[in-house]
Amino acid sequence: MSIITLTTDFGTGSPYVAAMKGVILSLNPAATVIDISHAVPPQDVRYAAVALEDVADRFPGGTIHVAVVDPGVGTDRALVFARIGRQCYLAPDNGLLSRLARRTPPAHIVRLTEAEYWLRPVSATFHGRDILAPVAARLSLGLDPAHLGVPLDRLVMLDWPEVRRGPGRIEGAVLLADSFGNLITDIVADMLPEPARWPELRVFCRGHLISGLSRTYGDSPPGSLVALIGSSGRLELAVVNGSAAAAIQASRGDEVRASWPVG
Amino acid sequence: MSIITLTTDFGTGSPYVAAMKGVILSLNPAATVIDISHAVPPQDVRYAAVALEDVADRFPGGTIHVAVVDPGVGTDRALVFARIGRQCYLAPDNGLLSRLARRTPPAHIVRLTEAEYWLRPVSATFHGRDILAPVAARLSLGLDPAHLGVPLDRLVMLDWPEVRRGPGRIEGAVLLADSFGNLITDIVADMLPEPARWPELRVFCRGHLISGLSRTYGDSPPGSLVALIGSSGRLELAVVNGSAAAAIQASRGDEVRASWPVG
Amino acid sequence: MSIITLTTDFGTGSPYVAAMKGVILSLNPAATVIDISHAVPPQDVRYAAVALEDVADRFPGGTIHVAVVDPGVGTDRALVFARIGRQCYLAPDNGLLSRLARRTPPAHIVRLTEAEYWLRPVSATFHGRDILAPVAARLSLGLDPAHLGVPLDRLVMLDWPEVRRGPGRIEGAVLLADSFGNLITDIVADMLPEPARWPELRVFCRGHLISGLSRTYGDSPPGSLVALIGSSGRLELAVVNGSAAAAIQASRGDEVRASWPVG
Repeated sequence: MSIITLTTDFGTGSPYVAAMKGVILSLNPAATVIDISHAVPPQDVRYAAVALEDVADRFPGGTIHVAVVDPGVGTDRALVFARIGRQCYLAPDNGLLSRLARRTPPAHIVRLTEAEYWLRPVSATFHGRDILAPVAARLSLGLDPAHLGVPLDRLVMLDWPEVRRGPGRIEGAVLLADSFGNLITDIVADMLPEPARWPELRVFCRGHLISGLSRTYGDSPPGSLVALIGSSGRLELAVVNGSAAAAIQASRGDEVRASWPVG
Repeated sequence: MSIITLTTDFGTGSPYVAAMKGVILSLNPAATVIDISHAVPPQDVRYAAVALEDVADRFPGGTIHVAVVDPGVGTDRALVFARIGRQCYLAPDNGLLSRLARRTPPAHIVRLTEAEYWLRPVSATFHGRDILAPVAARLSLGLDPAHLGVPLDRLVMLDWPEVRRGPGRIEGAVLLADSFGNLITDIVADMLPEPARWPELRVFCRGHLISGLSRTYGDSPPGSLVALIGSSGRLELAVVNGSAAAAIQASRGDEVRASWPVG
Repeated sequence: MSIITLTTDFGTGSPYVAAMKGVILSLNPAATVIDISHAVPPQDVRYAAVALEDVADRFPGGTIHVAVVDPGVGTDRALVFARIGRQCYLAPDNGLLSRLARRTPPAHIVRLTEAEYWLRPVSATFHGRDILAPVAARLSLGLDPAHLGVPLDRLVMLDWPEVRRGPGRIEGAVLLADSFGNLITDIVADMLPEPARWPELRVFCRGHLISGLSRTYGDSPPGSLVALIGSSGRLELAVVNGSAAAAIQASRGDEVRASWPVG
């Protein structure tokens, strides 16, 4: 298996991404390198953590996902290998993997300490290129991750707000706004009544009330503010052919409540 | 042949694109997936239709082009396979393929109905990932498109303005502004006099008159507004080292006229 | 070897990039095509020259780097093949390769004149697609570069400011601001005292004084203006978790001075 993905905050079009690809291909010219996103807002570990949670599992088992949102580069923060579910990850241990890991406990974590698998010299500011890229390439060639360093018991976990649930109600939060301006929340479909009862739901956010859950965008006229279950199984607020983030001035952390009749 | 291209309005850097790539590579790890553009303005079917017309034919025969600009996702709009010329296309049947199809009648159109080739479950909001991506992967592995569903006679065709021609004159429209701000029109080189007569042409747009057709940008000083035949064979208005779209405040649909002496 | 990279000013998401990839894959479906950047500011030859200098050497020897920042397209400027170090380059001869070439003299330069290796017809405005892409594909298939045209003695060299050095001081300039807003200079680590003496350095730019060189971003609190040796070995000014370019209103060409005690 030789698929390697890259997720960074380098900015779309940054030549730094290409530097990582060059290092990977120098070691394994047959690797397939796929961009997940380089448009993570600078230093926004949480944004990248959600993106990885939503996308990584779509790749074939054994894919090596490299994530570099790394404000602590060159300090004593660890770099880690982790196997979570069927996938492998390489990242700074700063919470980047903490949404994946809260869903599925990692089966194998290694702190990267074995410099023989790194570039020489290692810069103080670009461990993505100098450590993670060559390690990813070597893993794609069959290196046993146990050789990479010392086992760890657990990853650094960020504190994610917990969804609060009660009879006929649920309170969550906006996780991120996607490129359409859709507001993606931490409330997932399983936490809500079955689809037959969606017309009875009321969703509140930033003083706006949405009555009923739509099945898809096209069921409502352009400009409508709607709530629906998005493609990652999450409750999502959207403006049809527009931007909910702009329309209701919402962003990460804003509360989203849903309620429905009980009894 | 295992080249698959992607054209979407997801936004450059959107992880949704990577989700489609993950699905494709899970089914066919040997596929080569190439981005045409993910910077199509949201829901702008016409923009994507022109981009596909200008680029798709540059790929090897048998390439599978997947286009997802899909404001009607989850409604009863069809998803289609079409063979047009030497290329294969998968897209919602909303006019995305209508510029290609007005030039070359499709040889084979299939409405996608056979869910056995799709992901399970299919979301209501992301058919690009759940239907088009796995179907593209299976076609790249040799699946006969006839198995995908039911034959269709024709594609949905958008109404594109017709170029009007008379002796010594032609009237067309701006199709789109490219990333340089060049204004690309629906007037093609064949509709104009031969190059020897280009100095006699007069081109009008938004109250601006351009005398003569240039051969290339560098023939005029920086800042000049020029008209020339662009790389897709279309009449194009450009500002040398600048943006014509900004300079003359023009955009899609604006009229462009050319005239020349006759007799 | 069949790795081909692309560096252009077409804009991220431009379908013109895909047109080049289609041409390459039509001739060599097994080529691996990697984007270095398409976010080079329009016509900014110097920006691309620095990006190539910093990234190209990360790729395997024999990689073919295609660069298209080409305000003179269609005029009499030359297109060239050059071998510099272990890498191959195809570009307009307008200074794009002049940072690479001032570091390592090119071993082999050929002006592209043999039209049999180009697309037919060649447009006047897109030689990246019509000449460089097919030539890159043919080189990747083993074509001897000597067949491409006539040998040249030297490349066009842009005038780059020279770093001025004296006892205990050095004066250089900002080369570019990267996507984080870090200001990358033409002063390299070798020109400065050894790391043990970094605390004694004083760095000046745009009226701001920075005392001491940091080892990495995370050694200082968010918002601090720091100087450090960046990942390409250059002196760099950065604001921790922010943008130095915005904070001190600096851009390319601005003077950067460093001084330290001597004797």
